[in-house]
Amino acid sequence: MSGLYSEGPDGVRWSIPSAGEMEVRWREISAAAAGRRVVVVQGLGFVGAAVATAIAAARDAEGRPLYFVIGVDLATPSAWWKIASLQTGSSPFATSDPEFARLLHEAIVVEKNLVATSSEEAYGLADVILVDVQLDVISDLSGAEGDIRVGLENYEKALRCIGRGMKSGALVIVETTVPIGMSRKVVRPILEQERAVRGIASGLLLAHAYERVMPGRRYLDSIRKFWRAFAADDDASGGAARDFLESFTDTASFPVSRLEGTTASEMAKLLENSYRAANIAFIHEWTLLAEHSGVNLWEVVDAIRVRKGTHDNMRYPGFGVGGYCLTKDSYLAQWGAKHLLGLDCGLPVTLAALSTNYAMPLHTRDLVRECAGGSLAGLRILLCGVSYLADVADTRNSPSLPFADAVIGEGAWLSYHDSLVGVWPERPEIPRVSGLDELAKFDAVVFAVPHAEYRPLRAENFPPGMIVVDASNIVDDPLAEALRARGCRIAGAGKGHWREKGWHLNS
Amino acid sequence: MSGLYSEGPDGVRWSIPSAGEMEVRWREISAAAAGRRVVVVQGLGFVGAAVATAIAAARDAEGRPLYFVIGVDLATPSAWWKIASLQTGSSPFATSDPEFARLLHEAIVVEKNLVATSSEEAYGLADVILVDVQLDVISDLSGAEGDIRVGLENYEKALRCIGRGMKSGALVIVETTVPIGMSRKVVRPILEQERAVRGIASGLLLAHAYERVMPGRRYLDSIRKFWRAFAADDDASGGAARDFLESFTDTASFPVSRLEGTTASEMAKLLENSYRAANIAFIHEWTLLAEHSGVNLWEVVDAIRVRKGTHDNMRYPGFGVGGYCLTKDSYLAQWGAKHLLGLDCGLPVTLAALSTNYAMPLHTRDLVRECAGGSLAGLRILLCGVSYLADVADTRNSPSLPFADAVIGEGAWLSYHDSLVGVWPERPEIPRVSGLDELAKFDAVVFAVPHAEYRPLRAENFPPGMIVVDASNIVDDPLAEALRARGCRIAGAGKGHWREKGWHLNS
Repeated sequence: MSGLYSEGPDGVRWSIPSAGEMEVRWREISAAAAGRRVVVVQGLGFVGAAVATAIAAARDAEGRPLYFVIGVDLATPSAWWKIASLQTGSSPFATSDPEFARLLHEAIVVEKNLVATSSEEAYGLADVILVDVQLDVISDLSGAEGDIRVGLENYEKALRCIGRGMKSGALVIVETTVPIGMSRKVVRPILEQERAVRGIASGLLLAHAYERVMPGRRYLDSIRKFWRAFAADDDASGGAARDFLESFTDTASFPVSRLEGTTASEMAKLLENSYRAANIAFIHEWTLLAEHSGVNLWEVVDAIRVRKGTHDNMRYPGFGVGGYCLTKDSYLAQWGAKHLLGLDCGLPVTLAALSTNYAMPLHTRDLVRECAGGSLAGLRILLCGVSYLADVADTRNSPSLPFADAVIGEGAWLSYHDSLVGVWPERPEIPRVSGLDELAKFDAVVFAVPHAEYRPLRAENFPPGMIVVDASNIVDDPLAEALRARGCRIAGAGKGHWREKGWHLNS
Repeated sequence: MSGLYSEGPDGVRWSIPSAGEMEVRWREISAAAAGRRVVVVQGLGFVGAAVATAIAAARDAEGRPLYFVIGVDLATPSAWWKIASLQTGSSPFATSDPEFARLLHEAIVVEKNLVATSSEEAYGLADVILVDVQLDVISDLSGAEGDIRVGLENYEKALRCIGRGMKSGALVIVETTVPIGMSRKVVRPILEQERAVRGIASGLLLAHAYERVMPGRRYLDSIRKFWRAFAADDDASGGAARDFLESFTDTASFPVSRLEGTTASEMAKLLENSYRAANIAFIHEWTLLAEHSGVNLWEVVDAIRVRKGTHDNMRYPGFGVGGYCLTKDSYLAQWGAKHLLGLDCGLPVTLAALSTNYAMPLHTRDLVRECAGGSLAGLRILLCGVSYLADVADTRNSPSLPFADAVIGEGAWLSYHDSLVGVWPERPEIPRVSGLDELAKFDAVVFAVPHAEYRPLRAENFPPGMIVVDASNIVDDPLAEALRARGCRIAGAGKGHWREKGWHLNS
């Protein structure tokens, strides 16, 4: 025993096995894989774990598993817990998708066609290798345009592992969201270099097929039952990639579409997420205008969204933007254009939108401060919701983080409530309140995320005189009136009609 | 006879009648209106003419016309032609909507419940007055943010006419797209002032109900069979407006929704058009990036639009933005916030989008120049399409205008082709080509608008070596290859894959 541990986000500690133990385990895996069509998934994060499960669930016409799937990650303190958790047949991530839990257990415990390991020998067995390693992207949430650092070192290291081990005819599919130009300028050269060292001169099969994995109850379906776009830069790769993708997705309902080159596929992913982010920023500007001109933007957006096909995806006011994708993908396009393709091609509207989004949660901070009469010092605030999506436990890049830092920086006492987030990984030191019956202990409550559990709240649940700031339409007009009757000060994103009545004031 | 004439856009000249003639005509109208429920439509432009027709077509349960409709405009050389044309039973505007032509004729010639006049006495007969007068908005197409001048003088004059003449219990509905705050800060004060002079102290019935009129084959349906939002600042006005709006629209399929105040309704119109404009600007940025990184953005957008409900309204690359609304409405929001409501509330992303859109047609100019080897001097260019929408004759604020001015400014010889636009009202001096068989007379052709008539073009229709620049996906890949085989130089908005192959070059 090396004595090294790896701790998951749920606080469970797993010991990292010794080299000898790993060797024994690898012999078991390679024996089990013998004679089967092997798929290796590199990177067992939020995407890789689900993709590995979806592929392991694929069946042939006789109902037999199509693939033996090996998930690979690192035997490091920050990564081993994913392997360890998967080996027991349970998800490394909290998930509300019952189908995922069931199929994961079936693949690992019953069918035994899904295993997890840190052994790099896995690449040598693979017919298909999926790259689901995340890029190291550090985006500065303070909002300066284009302020992003992309670290390729770890990603390149992961690619070199593949190049050193892969069979000459294996297909490599990059699923990672990458800067445009990455497949041609980084992935292909590295793999070909490593293959050349081994005397493999040509014939690399390489495709980019981005994922659209979403957290929540349809986690697994977001892989198996959703449209998929991919691209390759040659027809042998394109054909192989299509065959593989169609083998585990519901192509009858969700056809797979091939784009003309890997740059197109890389761009498609960045474009679709940038579109969403830009639409959120767009509505935030109008949220501010609506608040100051006395307009209830929620009902205005409802009146506009009736226009199906052109306006029905207009966003509502809100608290902010989080998650792994929408907060950075626009930058990845610009970064790739500049650093990989050598282009001087700006995306001014797109990037201005990201700046707007970064500042969004600070607007809710402003509303609290205004209700409090100008200062947050000493104010006891309960933040309701710290994930980045309703009814999901995922806290990656949650806008609750800059909100929390900002109000604490101004002297507030912050606690949070989120039934789905037992420990807030990014801010474990912030106290957690387990039940909404504790509202009376606070001066102010902020509804950041529209978790379903906040909907049943009634005026009686709030102490008289409380500050109630609603960024997610938890408080409807009747509740607002009832709160006002209790002497509460209330404000909300896009709720200009409350403001016009002076309901945010102490009067 | 005063000898004064009014000339319509079709070149027909109408003599403006004398005061005596108008007096006679007015006596006929007022006699016909006696005992009927009268609706006056002020302003017989693109919106007013269609609205008047739609209201005249409304029927009661027994199939009798609900209203006697009087359209009012000015007896000036720039406006009288609209009245004169309507009086004959034909549309003042070129239209491709057969239903509009039929119902207009029926109302004026058969039922005789729609008349047009310049007599201000009309307001005194009205139970409902619809304001469809346009604001004078001058937006500078050169693209400086917020560079807009709103002239309220003529609009205020029109409102004073109403206030001086209206019955005390008449309902006034503003349909004009106006800056936010206009109903409360301008319309109501003016009407109340004029009514006060006449001793009417209170009880003004006023609503804002913006129109969503679209040119094309569904011109009239865009009034009768489309969702409608409106608002009033008191319940008496709100109820009256709802009853009236529901009397001529298909509320079973398209319910009318009331918003909380007139500012909300004013904002809704500006917001929905700004959304469209912002989404166009967004994709234009990616168009430039796609061209430079070798990506066919058309197929990328197709792959993304499969995501129904979130991404299916993503725009394709294009030539530019035109029309009366999308080019200015975002500015109207900002202008109203500042000048009417006294707010300092910017819309940076929204307005940056308009700047991008203004510059769009110049990108197509850049593509032509690049294909031509760097200079447009002496180049004979045929511009295909000068309206602002496919298969529509409407040239208001068409992006073809800045394109034309730019290429002519650089020394090109420009002609245009557009079967629907006999005379280009904004540039009557630019020569028109009536048939595409004249392509051989030009060095370059630009497809600006995707009129259906351009779709059947084949490679043989283009002279060898021609420059073909396609902003609207008229040239698909097989045609592009065939053109290239004829030595053509080709480029297109979002067609990065052509560019990557060097098809814009002379080689």
